[in-house]
Amino acid sequence: MQIDRSPLARPFPAMPAIAGVTLRVARAHYKAWDRCDLTYVELAEGTSIAGVFTKSACASSEVELGRAAVKRGRAQALIVNAGNANAFTGYRGREAVEAIQAQVSAALGCGADEVFVSSTGVIGVPLPKDKARAGVAAALVAQPCGWQDAAVAIGTTDTFAKGAGASAMLGETRVELAGIIKGSGMIAPDMATMLGYIFTDADIAPVFLQEMLERANAATFSCITVDGDTSTSDTVLVFATGRAGNARIEGWHSPGADAFAAALADVCRNLAQSVVRDGEGAAKFITIRVSGAVSDDSARRIGLAIANSPLVKTAIAGGDANWGRVVMAVGKAGEPADRDRLSIAFGGVWAAKNGLPVDDYDETPVAAHLKGEDIDIAVDLGLGEGHATVWTCDLTHGYIAINADYRS
Amino acid sequence: MQIDRSPLARPFPAMPAIAGVTLRVARAHYKAWDRCDLTYVELAEGTSIAGVFTKSACASSEVELGRAAVKRGRAQALIVNAGNANAFTGYRGREAVEAIQAQVSAALGCGADEVFVSSTGVIGVPLPKDKARAGVAAALVAQPCGWQDAAVAIGTTDTFAKGAGASAMLGETRVELAGIIKGSGMIAPDMATMLGYIFTDADIAPVFLQEMLERANAATFSCITVDGDTSTSDTVLVFATGRAGNARIEGWHSPGADAFAAALADVCRNLAQSVVRDGEGAAKFITIRVSGAVSDDSARRIGLAIANSPLVKTAIAGGDANWGRVVMAVGKAGEPADRDRLSIAFGGVWAAKNGLPVDDYDETPVAAHLKGEDIDIAVDLGLGEGHATVWTCDLTHGYIAINADYRS
Repeated sequence: MQIDRSPLARPFPAMPAIAGVTLRVARAHYKAWDRCDLTYVELAEGTSIAGVFTKSACASSEVELGRAAVKRGRAQALIVNAGNANAFTGYRGREAVEAIQAQVSAALGCGADEVFVSSTGVIGVPLPKDKARAGVAAALVAQPCGWQDAAVAIGTTDTFAKGAGASAMLGETRVELAGIIKGSGMIAPDMATMLGYIFTDADIAPVFLQEMLERANAATFSCITVDGDTSTSDTVLVFATGRAGNARIEGWHSPGADAFAAALADVCRNLAQSVVRDGEGAAKFITIRVSGAVSDDSARRIGLAIANSPLVKTAIAGGDANWGRVVMAVGKAGEPADRDRLSIAFGGVWAAKNGLPVDDYDETPVAAHLKGEDIDIAVDLGLGEGHATVWTCDLTHGYIAINADYRS
Repeated sequence: MQIDRSPLARPFPAMPAIAGVTLRVARAHYKAWDRCDLTYVELAEGTSIAGVFTKSACASSEVELGRAAVKRGRAQALIVNAGNANAFTGYRGREAVEAIQAQVSAALGCGADEVFVSSTGVIGVPLPKDKARAGVAAALVAQPCGWQDAAVAIGTTDTFAKGAGASAMLGETRVELAGIIKGSGMIAPDMATMLGYIFTDADIAPVFLQEMLERANAATFSCITVDGDTSTSDTVLVFATGRAGNARIEGWHSPGADAFAAALADVCRNLAQSVVRDGEGAAKFITIRVSGAVSDDSARRIGLAIANSPLVKTAIAGGDANWGRVVMAVGKAGEPADRDRLSIAFGGVWAAKNGLPVDDYDETPVAAHLKGEDIDIAVDLGLGEGHATVWTCDLTHGYIAINADYRS
């Protein structure tokens, strides 16, 4: 099946090289794809790592091993297999991951737990060890490549390569950040979403890097949804090589901590939004701003209830300013809401205020807004100060075509 | 828009007249439909009532008033408006309901709170009081009609009329049950779902009728889902006229209580399944049996996570035995699960057992099963004794067409 490039795709951005990070790609031939499907990232000694992972109760061996290894805070290599998720494959899947770790750690002379492995693709087929071994061997000696090559190699049903960069001044030292991500379907909130990798040359203590990542994740990866379905393999890792020469960031008291956290959040938000822009069948990018909730967390859950509602998503696909469906989604969210204080706007125009349709509501500008590619929905609950922004895409025939009309 | 009759439709069943229940329909012209859209049910004096309602935080005035009135346990009339949900219409919506109650109670000489009103259709437009008044006036003097006429009149986007009957022996006395229901989209679990009305000539105390309804609801209406979206108006009411002459049923100790509860559950299950069979765009009826969970409630939530997963629903639509997507849905359910004890079957054939693909798995009979109209998915968690059965339909281009391609 040939899936068309998403109409919401953006060009791959210019991204800086990160000192201490070397990218290589190779062909493991997991699928009959005419492209590289194994990515190898070599990291300078002493690189800090932080990570967030899927909350799925059926997580893959990669996630289990990665979750444990992240706690030790050190990384020297990352391997990403595309085309096979190696999830729900029992001890055979775990053996395949451990074989890769052993092969790479032997080549680099580092510990096996400093080699991070991710796999993405079909569930329920053990990763073939021979293909992985040959692919890793080829990757270990391949010529270094650029960000876009790596972003393509980690993709599966993605229709475009996704990356984001940023920089921050830590006192007098400029540090760079570069991230790549893959994801298009089985995208849901409340966890690290998809396979995402962010690299920086900043020198940061792993514990604090983890804290900053979790904070950024809560407002970015955990605020996107394509279909409400949650992968067994979702992983976001941040690697900090420390090669920029800044004074090590140990906590919020360290100079530059705020600047770095802001840059990290910026990269996470851009990467998260790029996944929504490649949502299966997506034709519209939807931003849902919820305010007036009893807490930020409640606002986020209400936003996700709206974003995950198939009736809201199909209404937007059809260009229908059906705010009644937004009312329905608020009502089912299981969060505090008062029907008679609820207000709803499309594209900045209030359709309903305080539980009543607006008397002089003019649908003309709203209809024009809904014809566009970027849709804005605002919901005010009138209860408190809690607010959140959630991003999603519409639900179209394209989603059905990708997931039903063709065998996976 | 003309929506085709669901391929899963069943003929309207033969259903008995219920002593003490008189059905009438009329045209209120809420929509430009060439059919009756207002249903009036007159009930014998002393009729007991029980009800379950949506848990939406944005419920309609009809639901609010009905929920309060059910507690008094007495009913003499039911009015159902089709074409306008009168939800999210503030004080104007409430006034419209109270006007209908006043008009009917004056005609019958009963209390306004013995007149139950439901409305279904578009959200956010106050029910026009003049149309309602004229419609009720016409219905009050209309010729009595049969179950099928009433089942058609309460429908909106339904593609077929839905009803179910049953009988039970209470000692020497035979009692009859007859129910009608409407619903097709915005169907989700964890509450009374849709507009459903069940009538019986049995003599039953309201408090115990409520207990039996809630018990039946938990295993039937709360176990179906079409799209995971929850209506602002969902209501199921049971009316017991007491005209059969049985010894009044007061509790589980009363002779015939078990028999009646079983018949009531049977009617509820049939009505609930008929809503799934009219699910928007449905081409396949899916039964999901979950066993081995830590509790029945946990099993139900896992079943609903599978039933609501767009990736599972599209896989079934495409005839794809993609059990990896079932693993994913179990993993995201937020319930206790152990990846390495999980087993999954389609049509009675185990594809995966104890967290591993079955070695000699033969997809041929599974592929044949998935070509059929009735799909069976079994999931065993291997943890405990909890079990539940959930019903849903597939997700097809038809759902997108109904909800996106045409303005509501």
